[in-house]
Amino acid sequence: MEIVEVRTSRRAELLEVTGRVEEVVARSGVESGVVVVQSLHTTAALTLNENADPDVRHDLLAKLEEMVPQREPYYRHAEGNSDSHLKTSFLGPSLTVLVDGGRLVLGRWQGVYLCEFDGPRERRLAVQVLSSGR
Amino acid sequence: MEIVEVRTSRRAELLEVTGRVEEVVARSGVESGVVVVQSLHTTAALTLNENADPDVRHDLLAKLEEMVPQREPYYRHAEGNSDSHLKTSFLGPSLTVLVDGGRLVLGRWQGVYLCEFDGPRERRLAVQVLSSGR
Amino acid sequence: MEIVEVRTSRRAELLEVTGRVEEVVARSGVESGVVVVQSLHTTAALTLNENADPDVRHDLLAKLEEMVPQREPYYRHAEGNSDSHLKTSFLGPSLTVLVDGGRLVLGRWQGVYLCEFDGPRERRLAVQVLSSGR
Repeated sequence: MEIVEVRTSRRAELLEVTGRVEEVVARSGVESGVVVVQSLHTTAALTLNENADPDVRHDLLAKLEEMVPQREPYYRHAEGNSDSHLKTSFLGPSLTVLVDGGRLVLGRWQGVYLCEFDGPRERRLAVQVLSSGR
Repeated sequence: MEIVEVRTSRRAELLEVTGRVEEVVARSGVESGVVVVQSLHTTAALTLNENADPDVRHDLLAKLEEMVPQREPYYRHAEGNSDSHLKTSFLGPSLTVLVDGGRLVLGRWQGVYLCEFDGPRERRLAVQVLSSGR
Repeated sequence: MEIVEVRTSRRAELLEVTGRVEEVVARSGVESGVVVVQSLHTTAALTLNENADPDVRHDLLAKLEEMVPQREPYYRHAEGNSDSHLKTSFLGPSLTVLVDGGRLVLGRWQGVYLCEFDGPRERRLAVQVLSSGR
């Protein structure tokens, strides 16, 4: 297992970490298998999404903000980040990506993204590589 | 593989099962790897989220209920639990968590939660531990 | 790793691929472990959900469409499929299912679904089977 540290710079942000995960896979020496990336936080998630047009990330965050705004009259949690917790469970606290030929298996437009929902903060990702034994 | 049985007590509930999953990991003898927990149901999900302030769980369920209410005029499914199915796919039917030193790798505030969306019921979770071989 | 190719026939569709994933598991010879299925696209996801009443799939897609419609005045992405990207991250780009006795471990009503959100298209799924070594 390796820990990858990432600094985010806004309250909500999709930050590409594909290269950081690739480095862990390369160091593991695993040729074929999977890599699991887990956020060690309850207000930051992981997903695969488009790494080309940044407008996709804008639209994704804008729609999420509209659906799950920071304030709701019925929220009880005093820290004011209940929305961040829900968004994290929606997008998922961990992500599994295939490894083949010693590299991440990604579609043409796929990148690995840390989804920050309560930044800016220092975030820690735990990364484990598992071999298929072939 | 082990099956963990859990009884829920409300229609919608986030029930912590961290200890139950830890027990399976301990019995497996795996020191380093991952544990995969899978709900065997189409109306109950799994996620990682905050295990400290119970208000987070209240807010999460309240917002989910507002976004995906039980009744919609266009729902066709006769059992009246279409919302439960959608919430399950949103939060995810299976969850992968890293294992290191023979224990779950969890951030300071992270716990493993069974997300009940059509209870109260007896629920079954299938748990598998995979070693990274190191 | 194997690549499974699937043709979808509508813009939004839940297409069962359980049998296709079962075939890969059978060919792998793995008796006990997990199978990871990953969409190689940013507008198609994977989930487990009900394989009995097709009304569940109708309701799930109808509610998703209401929550995340194709058009929003603030969307910037020129391709007009920002909704497809968000729905994909909501339902998840990859799915892990347990394997036992050489078969998928599924609850009575669970099937594996490709979630098409920007079809009709040819879609590619990457599938990897990992053994628990027991």
